[in-house]
Amino acid sequence: MNTRERIPNIFPVDPNLPPTQQLKPLHNRWHPEIPPVAQVKVNSVFRVDMIDFTGGQIKNDDSAEDVKSININKNHHLSGPFSVCDEKEEPAKPGDLLVVELCDLGALPGHEWGYTGIFDRENGGGFLADHFPNAAKAIWDLEGVYASSRHIPGVRFAGNIHPGLIGTAPSKELLGIWNERERKLLEEGPEKITLSSVLHHRPMAMLPEPKEALLGTISPKSAEFQRIAKEAARTIPGRENGGNCDIKNLTRGSRIYLPVFVEGANFSIGDLHFSQGDGEVSFCGAIEMSGFAIMRCQIIRNGMDKYLTPMGPTKLHVNPIFEVGPLEPRYSEFLVFEGVSVDEYGKQYYMDASVAYKRAVLNCIYYFTKFGYTPEQVYLLMSCCPCEGRISGIVDVPNACATLAVPTAIFDMDIRPKVPTQHVHVKVRQVSLPQCTYDGKLPTFPRIQRPTFSD
Amino acid sequence: MNTRERIPNIFPVDPNLPPTQQLKPLHNRWHPEIPPVAQVKVNSVFRVDMIDFTGGQIKNDDSAEDVKSININKNHHLSGPFSVCDEKEEPAKPGDLLVVELCDLGALPGHEWGYTGIFDRENGGGFLADHFPNAAKAIWDLEGVYASSRHIPGVRFAGNIHPGLIGTAPSKELLGIWNERERKLLEEGPEKITLSSVLHHRPMAMLPEPKEALLGTISPKSAEFQRIAKEAARTIPGRENGGNCDIKNLTRGSRIYLPVFVEGANFSIGDLHFSQGDGEVSFCGAIEMSGFAIMRCQIIRNGMDKYLTPMGPTKLHVNPIFEVGPLEPRYSEFLVFEGVSVDEYGKQYYMDASVAYKRAVLNCIYYFTKFGYTPEQVYLLMSCCPCEGRISGIVDVPNACATLAVPTAIFDMDIRPKVPTQHVHVKVRQVSLPQCTYDGKLPTFPRIQRPTFSD
Amino acid sequence: MNTRERIPNIFPVDPNLPPTQQLKPLHNRWHPEIPPVAQVKVNSVFRVDMIDFTGGQIKNDDSAEDVKSININKNHHLSGPFSVCDEKEEPAKPGDLLVVELCDLGALPGHEWGYTGIFDRENGGGFLADHFPNAAKAIWDLEGVYASSRHIPGVRFAGNIHPGLIGTAPSKELLGIWNERERKLLEEGPEKITLSSVLHHRPMAMLPEPKEALLGTISPKSAEFQRIAKEAARTIPGRENGGNCDIKNLTRGSRIYLPVFVEGANFSIGDLHFSQGDGEVSFCGAIEMSGFAIMRCQIIRNGMDKYLTPMGPTKLHVNPIFEVGPLEPRYSEFLVFEGVSVDEYGKQYYMDASVAYKRAVLNCIYYFTKFGYTPEQVYLLMSCCPCEGRISGIVDVPNACATLAVPTAIFDMDIRPKVPTQHVHVKVRQVSLPQCTYDGKLPTFPRIQRPTFSD
Amino acid sequence: MNTRERIPNIFPVDPNLPPTQQLKPLHNRWHPEIPPVAQVKVNSVFRVDMIDFTGGQIKNDDSAEDVKSININKNHHLSGPFSVCDEKEEPAKPGDLLVVELCDLGALPGHEWGYTGIFDRENGGGFLADHFPNAAKAIWDLEGVYASSRHIPGVRFAGNIHPGLIGTAPSKELLGIWNERERKLLEEGPEKITLSSVLHHRPMAMLPEPKEALLGTISPKSAEFQRIAKEAARTIPGRENGGNCDIKNLTRGSRIYLPVFVEGANFSIGDLHFSQGDGEVSFCGAIEMSGFAIMRCQIIRNGMDKYLTPMGPTKLHVNPIFEVGPLEPRYSEFLVFEGVSVDEYGKQYYMDASVAYKRAVLNCIYYFTKFGYTPEQVYLLMSCCPCEGRISGIVDVPNACATLAVPTAIFDMDIRPKVPTQHVHVKVRQVSLPQCTYDGKLPTFPRIQRPTFSD
Repeated sequence: MNTRERIPNIFPVDPNLPPTQQLKPLHNRWHPEIPPVAQVKVNSVFRVDMIDFTGGQIKNDDSAEDVKSININKNHHLSGPFSVCDEKEEPAKPGDLLVVELCDLGALPGHEWGYTGIFDRENGGGFLADHFPNAAKAIWDLEGVYASSRHIPGVRFAGNIHPGLIGTAPSKELLGIWNERERKLLEEGPEKITLSSVLHHRPMAMLPEPKEALLGTISPKSAEFQRIAKEAARTIPGRENGGNCDIKNLTRGSRIYLPVFVEGANFSIGDLHFSQGDGEVSFCGAIEMSGFAIMRCQIIRNGMDKYLTPMGPTKLHVNPIFEVGPLEPRYSEFLVFEGVSVDEYGKQYYMDASVAYKRAVLNCIYYFTKFGYTPEQVYLLMSCCPCEGRISGIVDVPNACATLAVPTAIFDMDIRPKVPTQHVHVKVRQVSLPQCTYDGKLPTFPRIQRPTFSD
Repeated sequence: MNTRERIPNIFPVDPNLPPTQQLKPLHNRWHPEIPPVAQVKVNSVFRVDMIDFTGGQIKNDDSAEDVKSININKNHHLSGPFSVCDEKEEPAKPGDLLVVELCDLGALPGHEWGYTGIFDRENGGGFLADHFPNAAKAIWDLEGVYASSRHIPGVRFAGNIHPGLIGTAPSKELLGIWNERERKLLEEGPEKITLSSVLHHRPMAMLPEPKEALLGTISPKSAEFQRIAKEAARTIPGRENGGNCDIKNLTRGSRIYLPVFVEGANFSIGDLHFSQGDGEVSFCGAIEMSGFAIMRCQIIRNGMDKYLTPMGPTKLHVNPIFEVGPLEPRYSEFLVFEGVSVDEYGKQYYMDASVAYKRAVLNCIYYFTKFGYTPEQVYLLMSCCPCEGRISGIVDVPNACATLAVPTAIFDMDIRPKVPTQHVHVKVRQVSLPQCTYDGKLPTFPRIQRPTFSD
Repeated sequence: MNTRERIPNIFPVDPNLPPTQQLKPLHNRWHPEIPPVAQVKVNSVFRVDMIDFTGGQIKNDDSAEDVKSININKNHHLSGPFSVCDEKEEPAKPGDLLVVELCDLGALPGHEWGYTGIFDRENGGGFLADHFPNAAKAIWDLEGVYASSRHIPGVRFAGNIHPGLIGTAPSKELLGIWNERERKLLEEGPEKITLSSVLHHRPMAMLPEPKEALLGTISPKSAEFQRIAKEAARTIPGRENGGNCDIKNLTRGSRIYLPVFVEGANFSIGDLHFSQGDGEVSFCGAIEMSGFAIMRCQIIRNGMDKYLTPMGPTKLHVNPIFEVGPLEPRYSEFLVFEGVSVDEYGKQYYMDASVAYKRAVLNCIYYFTKFGYTPEQVYLLMSCCPCEGRISGIVDVPNACATLAVPTAIFDMDIRPKVPTQHVHVKVRQVSLPQCTYDGKLPTFPRIQRPTFSD
Repeated sequence: MNTRERIPNIFPVDPNLPPTQQLKPLHNRWHPEIPPVAQVKVNSVFRVDMIDFTGGQIKNDDSAEDVKSININKNHHLSGPFSVCDEKEEPAKPGDLLVVELCDLGALPGHEWGYTGIFDRENGGGFLADHFPNAAKAIWDLEGVYASSRHIPGVRFAGNIHPGLIGTAPSKELLGIWNERERKLLEEGPEKITLSSVLHHRPMAMLPEPKEALLGTISPKSAEFQRIAKEAARTIPGRENGGNCDIKNLTRGSRIYLPVFVEGANFSIGDLHFSQGDGEVSFCGAIEMSGFAIMRCQIIRNGMDKYLTPMGPTKLHVNPIFEVGPLEPRYSEFLVFEGVSVDEYGKQYYMDASVAYKRAVLNCIYYFTKFGYTPEQVYLLMSCCPCEGRISGIVDVPNACATLAVPTAIFDMDIRPKVPTQHVHVKVRQVSLPQCTYDGKLPTFPRIQRPTFSD
C-alpha cells in the first residue's frame, strides 16, 4: 500500500467550546514570535478546523442583541500557525513563496448553520454604517451546497466557501512597518481624509491591543505574553502577508502564493465564510461559520524574487497572488447596478472607487425593497450572496464607475425590470429580521423613503 | 410577408472622413437642446454606426506621435441623439425608463483594426500616469472575434465589444447639477484631496469648453451654438444619464435601462471598444475602433419611479441598471493579483479602493515583465484584455482589498507560477512598442527595476 | 504600414440570385477533381460568403408548401473549394493537417432572417419522421446575436453560429471507400437493421446522383461533368473529411484540424446555421441562413501522422478534431430530459444511444406541450435552440442512457416543474405554425395525446 | 430556537465492513416488496451514506487481480429504500413525482480514495471490450475537490460527484414489463442485433438472479426472500424509475423529479462516483467511492400526469427529468474528437450514435497515446474525467456524428495540436498501470499500432 487513504486532522476544534478552551490554542494577533502549533510537509494533504469569526459569540436565534454587544477585540480566531518544510525537512525560508492549495472547505459536521450581521455603528458598523447604524442579523441554514435563511425569504444560493483570512506570519521588520503606518493614519485623524464623509466615521484603524489577545501556546501569564500582545498586529485588515482579505474567489480548489517572512512561513487560517459578495459590505457580512479546510502546501524557493515585485520602500512591500478554482458557483444572468463617484449628498468626488461602489450598493439595496424586502435585509443579502463588485472604469475624470452585479437565479421570483406594464407585481411574503435600535450619537443618513408604486 | 428581412442603418458613418464631414452630424457634448437626428420606434431593430473615440486622430502605424499630440477636446464623437417613441408615436417622457438592447456590436467592415494608447501625462495620462508618463500605443488587428497586436506579442483574445459610452440627454436641471458640482471640485483643487498622491496630478475635471465642440445639427456659426457650447457638459465621465461608463460587461446581447430626462429620451452612443479590461486603466485603454451597433428600444412608462431610487438631493440623482448578455468571452482559469490600500511609497490610506486597485494593477504589470514584456506593454494589455477588477473587501479597516484577475488562456505560453524549479523559463520574443519620451515636468514615480532572475 | 486594415471577401455571394447564377460557382458534391476557385495563404485572414442550405428554395412567409416540395438533390451549396499554400506558396499535401480557424461567422447584411423546417416524410423527414411526418417551418428574425420567431412564441436565444458543413476534398481512394460502403448499406436494406423500427423508414443513404449536381467551375455541358457527377459523393453525411457534421460547438472562434487528402487541401464550407441544438433533430433543423465566415488557415506538415490515428482498414480512416471557441452562449440553468434505449412501443434495444436519445427528445417535446406549444413547435425548437444532447451512460446493459438538456433562460416564462401546487399555471399565447398535411403512406406513430390538466 | 443546527445521518455505513454486516441493510435488486428502512418527511434535510459500487471488493493497491476476479452479481449496494411522506405524514402515492434535491455529495471521511477499472471481457468488459479485453485499474487519491492517480500521471481534475444510481421502487406491473422485455432481448440473441459487431459480445442483459442478492431487511433464510430474489430486477441498467443512469451532471445541487410507482416512493441511492465522463465507457468507469449524500425531498401530487408524458404502451413508460446544479466544474477550453457511424473495420452503420461515439472515443484514446500514455490509461481516464459526449448530428444519412470533448486544463502539459513544427514535444513520465492479461477466447480487435513520430 503506497498511498494515502485518509486525511489527518491536524487542528481539530469544537465550536461548542469557548476559544480559550480549544485543545489546540487559537490566536487572534499577528506576531513573528507566536510559536507554530504543528509542522506540515510539502505535498501532504491535511485538514484544519476553524471556529467561526466571533468564536461563538453569535447564537442561532431570533434576536440581534448578541451582535449589538459583541466585543470586537475578541474577533478572529485563527487556526495555526503552521510551519512548512520540504521533503527533506528543510523549513520554508524568508524570500520563499508558500503555495497553499485549498483542496476543500466545508462546514463542521453537526454545525451546519451560519450568520450574517450588521454591527452597531458604535461598534464599528459596516460599509454603509451611516445608513444602517443599528445591529441586525440573519441566520442561515446550510443545506449542503445551498444556504437559505428564515430571516430573508425568497432566496437560496450556492456558497463560494472561502477563508476570509489566510496569511503568513510577519517578520519583525514588517510588523514594525504595519504598526507605524497605521498609527500615523490614526494620528492624522479623519480631518485629513476627504474620502466619503461617511466612511471615516468608522474606526480609522485598530492598533495593537492586549485586551482579549490570544497568542496560541504562549501563556497569558508570562511576561512574554505582555510584550508580544502590545506589539502584535490586529488581524482586521489584509496586508502584505495576505491576512483578512475577504476575497470570495479564493474558494474551493484555488491556490494561493503567499510571501514567506519568517522561517517555516508560519501560516494561519480562519474566519471561514460559507458565502460572500464582493466587498463583504456589512462587515460581518459573509455567512460566518465554523468549518474545516483540507489543504496541501508547496514551497517555491526564492519565489518572492521570482514572482513578486516589491511595490514600496522595502522588498517586503509585496502582495500575494492566487489562481481561482474550478468550482465557483455558476450563474449566467446578472442584473447590474451602476454607481459613480458622487455621494448621496450630491457631492462630487475625484476618481473615488469607494464612493462609486457605495452608490452602486445603495442603488441595489433600494431596488430590491420594491419586492417587499426591508433595506436591512438587502444590505445583509448583498454582503453574503455571490454578487460581483467591479471597478468598471477608473480613468474618466472625475467619476470612477463601479458596478454591483447580482445573479438573478438566487431569487425564487423574477426580479428583473419588466418592460410591459401588464405583469403581475411580485412581492415576497415578509418575515421579521432580528435587529436592534441604534442608540449612539454619530451622524446617520436620513432614512431613505422607498417609493410606493403599484402596477 | 409580415416580418423584417433587413435591418436599416439609420446613422451611417465613414471612418475615412473627419467627424465634421460625416453626413449625419456627430456631437461630443451633453446638452438638452442638441436636436435628435432620427426618431426610432420601440421594438424596431435598427443599426447605428460609430466612428472611433478620437475621430480618426490615431493612425494604423508604428509611431506614437499621434497619441502624444492628440487634442483631448476633440475626443468622443457620438452618434445620435435618437429620440424614441412608442407604437402610437408617443415619445418617451421624463420619468420613463428607456430600455436599449444591444442586439449586436461589431467593427465597420473594411476597418478591422483598433488601437490602445497611453496618453502623455501633460495630456491627462491614465490611471498610472505617474509611472507611465510618456505616450505609447499598440495597434490591434481585429480578426473576427479575436484581436492580436504586432506590438504586444504572444497574446490573442476574444473581444467583449461594447460602447464605452451610451446615455440619454440631461435635462436643463441635471446639466446644472453636473456643472456646479464639477466646478466646485476644480475650485477646491487637489490640495483638498488626499486620495493617492498621484492620481490627482491628472486633470481634476473638465468643464464646458467651446473649443472643438460638435453639437450635431446646430450650425457652428449660430449664436445658439456659442451659448450651448459654453454650458454643454463634457462627455468624459459617466454620470446619472449613463454616459461614458466604460463598462466592459455591457457587451453583445445586454440590455440597459436608462433614465429619461427630456422628451424623446434623446440617447446617444459612441466610443466603441472591441475589448476592455475592468478600469480601462491606460485611459485610451480599450481597443478603440469604429463600428456599428444593432439595437432595439423599449419604453417603461414611469419606470424611474418604479425601478430606480434617487440617491441624492434631487430625484434626478439616479444611475442606470443593466442586464448582462449571454455572449461574454468564456474563460475559466484566472491568475489573480491582490492589492491593499497602501500606496507604492508605503503610505497607509483609509478604505481606499482606488489605491488598492492601483497597487493590484502595478503588481500585475511587474509580474508579467518577467516573461519579457516591457511595463508599458503590460499596462496597455491590462487596459484592453478581458481582465476583471474586483472590490474584494471594503470593510476591514484600514485596508480596502482589490483584485485584478487575468485570464490565463489569452497568452500562448503558460504564465502561472511554477512550483518545481525544473521548468524551462519561457519568454516572449520581444518586439518594439511605439512610444514617445515624456518631456513634461510633473513628478513621476522612479522607474521600477525589474528583478533579474534565472531558473 | 505593415498590417492588414481590411479583410478581403474572396467568395462573395448574393442570396437573391439562384445558385447557378452566383459569380463564384457553388458546388454540392465531393470529388477530388472539382477545381479550387481560389488559393489562400496561411496566416492571411479572409472572408467567404455562403448561401443558405437550400439555395433560396425557402421563403420568408407563412406557408410550409415550399418545405414540402423541396428538391433534396439540390441541397447543400458549398463555397469553395479553396486550396491552401504556405508562406512559400507550397500547397498543403496529403498527410498534412489543415487548420481552419473560424474567426467570425454571421448573417449576410440585408438578409437577417433564417428558417427551421420539418421535411415531409416522403422527402426524407427527420429524426422523428414517424411522429412528425408532415412538413412545417418556422421563420426566425435574426436580431443581432438573438433569434426570435413569429411562429414559436415566448422564446428568444443567442445563436451559436456555425457552418453545418466544413471539409476537405476526398482523394480518389477515399471517395471509392465512401461509395462502396454506402452502396453496401443500401443493398442490404432496412431488414438488416434492427435499430429503432422508425429511423430506417428514412432514406438509408444517398448515392451519387448527377441530377441537380453543381460542380463549381466545371461546365455542365462537358463530358467531364457527367463522369464526375456520377461518382462524386453526396454531401449529406459527415465523413472522414469532416463535411456535414452539424456540430453546434464549432462556433465563433473555434479551430478545426482537417485531414488533407489532395494537394492544396481544397476545403469547402457551407450550410451556415445561426443556431442549432445537438442532433439537429428535425433535419432542416438548425436556423438555416445565408452568411459569411472570416477565416485563417494554417498547415501542420505531416499532421495526420502526428495527431490522428487511423481507425479502420486504411490510413484514410480518420476523423477531424477541433478546439471550441470562447464565445458559446453562456447558460447556467438547464432542465434535463432522460431517455433509455426502450422505444415508444416498449421494445427493448441493446445499448442503442440513438433510441435512448429519441426517447429523451420525445419526452422533452411532450413536456413543453403543457405550456401551450404544439408538438411540432417544440420539435422545431429543439432542433435549433442551444440544447445539449449527451450520451450519459453507454455501458449498463441493455440500456444506453441519453439526455437532452434545455437552457431554461431561452423561455420568457419559468418552465421548470413547480413543487407547490399553488402556482399560477403559465401558458404561451399560441400562434399558427406553417405546416402541411402528410399525404404519404409510410407508417407513422399514432398521435400522442397531450394530457390535459389543471392546477 | 426554531431552526435546524445539524443534519441527521439516517443511514450510516462503514466501508470497512462487508455489505452483509452493515447495520442498515443494503440491497442490490429492484422489487416493490423490499421494505423501506426509514421514512423521511418532505423539506427535512438528511444524510445518507453509501458504500462503493462493489461493496469493498476493490483494494487500494497496485494489482488488478481484484478487478479481474470480481463477482458482478454482487455489485451495486444501494442505501434505502426510503419512503417519503408529506408534512401531514401522508405518503407519496403512485402518480406523484418525488423531488430529490442533492444538497451535497462527498467522500466518507477517512476513506478519501476511489478507483476506476476495466473489467475483464469474460466478466462483461466495457464499451470498448474488444479493444481492451483485459482487466486494469487505477487508484485515485481524493484531495478535497480534486482527484489524482499514481497510475495515470500528469492529470488532476475537480470531481462532479454524483450518485450513479438513484431511483424509486418499481410497481409489480412495471417490474413485469422490465423482466419481459429484457428476457425477450436475450432470447433473440446477438444475431438479431446489427449494432457494432463488437458491443454485442458483451452481456446482452442480466435477468433476475438470486445468487448474491441482497434484499435489505428481508431475511435471506425466508421463503419470501427466495420468491422475491427470483423476480427482482437487476440494478445494472437505468430504467423508467431512474436507476443506474450514470449521469455525471446529476451532481451537487441538482434536483431530480422521479416518478412514484409504489406508496411511499421507496427511493434508493448508491454507486457514488467522485467523477465521471459522459458514457462511463470502461463500465467500472467513474471514480467509484464510498460516500454520503445530503438530501431534501418534496412531493408533487399527481406530478406524473402534470409533467411526464408516457412514451410507450402503458402510462408507466416514463423517464425522470432533472435540473442541473450550480457547481459543475468549470472548464472553458476543450479539445474535441469527432466520430461517425463507420466502425473501425470500415463498415457503414445507419444513424448509429453508439458506433459514432465508439469511434470518437477511440480517436481520443489514440490521440493521447502520443503524449506517452498507454491506451489503457486513456481509456480509464476518459471514463472518469469530466469529458463531454455529445450526439452532435443524428439526421444526416447514413452517418450519425458524435463528439467527445476533453477539457484541456486537466492535464499539466499543453496537449493541443501545435501549429508550428518547432515546438518541443512533451511526454509524461510514464508509470506502471495495474493490469492483467486477457485469457478468454472472445474475439478482440488487433492491437492498434501507435504511430511513432518525432518532431
